[in-house]
Amino acid sequence: MSAKSYDVVGIGNAIVDVLVQADDDQLDAFGLTKGTMALVDEHQAERLYANVGPGLETSGGSAANTLAGIAQLGGRAGFIGRVRDDQLGAIFAHDIRSVGASFETPAACSGPSTARCLILVTPDAQRTMCTYLGASVGLDPADLDLDMVARARVLYLEGYLWDSDEAKRAFIAAAEVARAHGGEVALSLSDAFCVERHRDSFQELVDGHVDILFANEMEITALYKANSFEEAAEQVRGRCRIAALTRSELGSVILNGAGTHLVEPFRLGPLVDTTGAGDLYAAGFLHGHTQGLAVEECGRLGSLCAGQVVTQLGPRPQADLRQLAQTHLGSAV
Amino acid sequence: MSAKSYDVVGIGNAIVDVLVQADDDQLDAFGLTKGTMALVDEHQAERLYANVGPGLETSGGSAANTLAGIAQLGGRAGFIGRVRDDQLGAIFAHDIRSVGASFETPAACSGPSTARCLILVTPDAQRTMCTYLGASVGLDPADLDLDMVARARVLYLEGYLWDSDEAKRAFIAAAEVARAHGGEVALSLSDAFCVERHRDSFQELVDGHVDILFANEMEITALYKANSFEEAAEQVRGRCRIAALTRSELGSVILNGAGTHLVEPFRLGPLVDTTGAGDLYAAGFLHGHTQGLAVEECGRLGSLCAGQVVTQLGPRPQADLRQLAQTHLGSAV
Repeated sequence: MSAKSYDVVGIGNAIVDVLVQADDDQLDAFGLTKGTMALVDEHQAERLYANVGPGLETSGGSAANTLAGIAQLGGRAGFIGRVRDDQLGAIFAHDIRSVGASFETPAACSGPSTARCLILVTPDAQRTMCTYLGASVGLDPADLDLDMVARARVLYLEGYLWDSDEAKRAFIAAAEVARAHGGEVALSLSDAFCVERHRDSFQELVDGHVDILFANEMEITALYKANSFEEAAEQVRGRCRIAALTRSELGSVILNGAGTHLVEPFRLGPLVDTTGAGDLYAAGFLHGHTQGLAVEECGRLGSLCAGQVVTQLGPRPQADLRQLAQTHLGSAV
Repeated sequence: MSAKSYDVVGIGNAIVDVLVQADDDQLDAFGLTKGTMALVDEHQAERLYANVGPGLETSGGSAANTLAGIAQLGGRAGFIGRVRDDQLGAIFAHDIRSVGASFETPAACSGPSTARCLILVTPDAQRTMCTYLGASVGLDPADLDLDMVARARVLYLEGYLWDSDEAKRAFIAAAEVARAHGGEVALSLSDAFCVERHRDSFQELVDGHVDILFANEMEITALYKANSFEEAAEQVRGRCRIAALTRSELGSVILNGAGTHLVEPFRLGPLVDTTGAGDLYAAGFLHGHTQGLAVEECGRLGSLCAGQVVTQLGPRPQADLRQLAQTHLGSAV
């Protein structure tokens, strides 16, 4: 790997989250499946919003959350994604830059507004998401800062991008550039429904382009239509260099060649909101990876970051992640 | 008092808050006085925002927080204030309506954007505010729904409105309509610097128009240039029917004619952020008042609501205030 000026560069949907409290009856009334992400159009988004309680707004977006977390951990992070030149777009840009990540994708001057994700948080701390992709759909190869991608040790991609044809092309172009410049490619499968929509593409991608794969139990079993987590894990083993598979309260399982590492979860307080748990696991893991830690140490740092974010509302850690890592993991990071 | 369709109608600045974590060094660097509210222009607001960490956005505005709280308690609440027809304006309107308050002031179609308040929350849970008044300044008598005001048992006004000449005129016009229709007028002094700016006007207002006054210790001593809280309390006694004076961890003191009632604070958990404490005290107090409770019971409900909101980030209670009142105060409410 040549000298790189970024540890991790991520490509994803640039989204502002609207977090609202909800109950199971509301999920049923809206026809939503708990714990998943549903795509909605602008009209549906407005209708849902009109029928929920007061919101808390915070920057979100799966890969963006991961890159913000890496920056908070002290890593050199860059994010590529598209907002509109509107108030929510300005909030998104401010928040990711303010933690030290680079974000230079030009805001769209016309077209749909900045993407919003209505996140219904139920009393069991589960989050159910309805995403209006807005301006983020328009990310195309012309928006890609391929120089930034070439300078990354790891290129991180979120599976959600697969829902847009332009973004998907941008995504593969970027993966090829990263590889050509000696970088690694990491992918998060994002959501089980997203995997259902794009199973074949994801399988090809994992086999052909991905060094490090992140998936939760539902996503990895959906990817291989497996009957159990164990079966899915054996399917993915060896198809990419590292597979980090998260299992909520069971912790995570990291497959690394023939090796299998079990990582315990961290419990840092009462469970408030699981939004961002997977994103922050990836942040800790990838930061550890670029700092040269062994995979089990990467997993522990991922678990720690995920363990923090679920104790608060919203996917961007309000705690000092570096201090937390120092306290719980010592000088390893 | 004739039959009324609103318990409380409030007039205030319609603001979206941007909550950020900060430390004392940042307050010093920005030249801010901890615990106060400073007015900033759009340029200053942008410059400050560019120099702070990531934010959490939530609807705010002092009187708006109070009216939202009254609606959450089950009161019939209405709010009058001005937003722009932009994304933050839509968030403000959604949030206050979603808790059941009426909000029908038309959004401005041109001119400055919706008001924003950058709130720096320090590790001691104190909040220091920088407000860009934007579209809210343009509230003028033409925006006032005087029919709504006439139908209110209590008209609630925030002192912050005094910083705009148009709003000040709207404010006095509304107080006269409320009185003429048998309603009461309540005022919050809002902020010690605000009192310094408008001392004479506020003194006249209290003497001539106000039935119920809310002030904290700094505000009431500023109003009468008093040397102590006790001296200020004796100055205000009898100038309005009820004065509810809040003293943070010392609780509150309610002056009611010759009577003096001391109310203990509620401690419901670790102190996180004092944003909205005074607003929610007023919410509980006024809700109790319109439900016919004795002043000390009104004070206890105010203390309870304030005690809840300081355990969370932001000024709009995320807890169920009705349930909380039931648990802590029983069937009184």
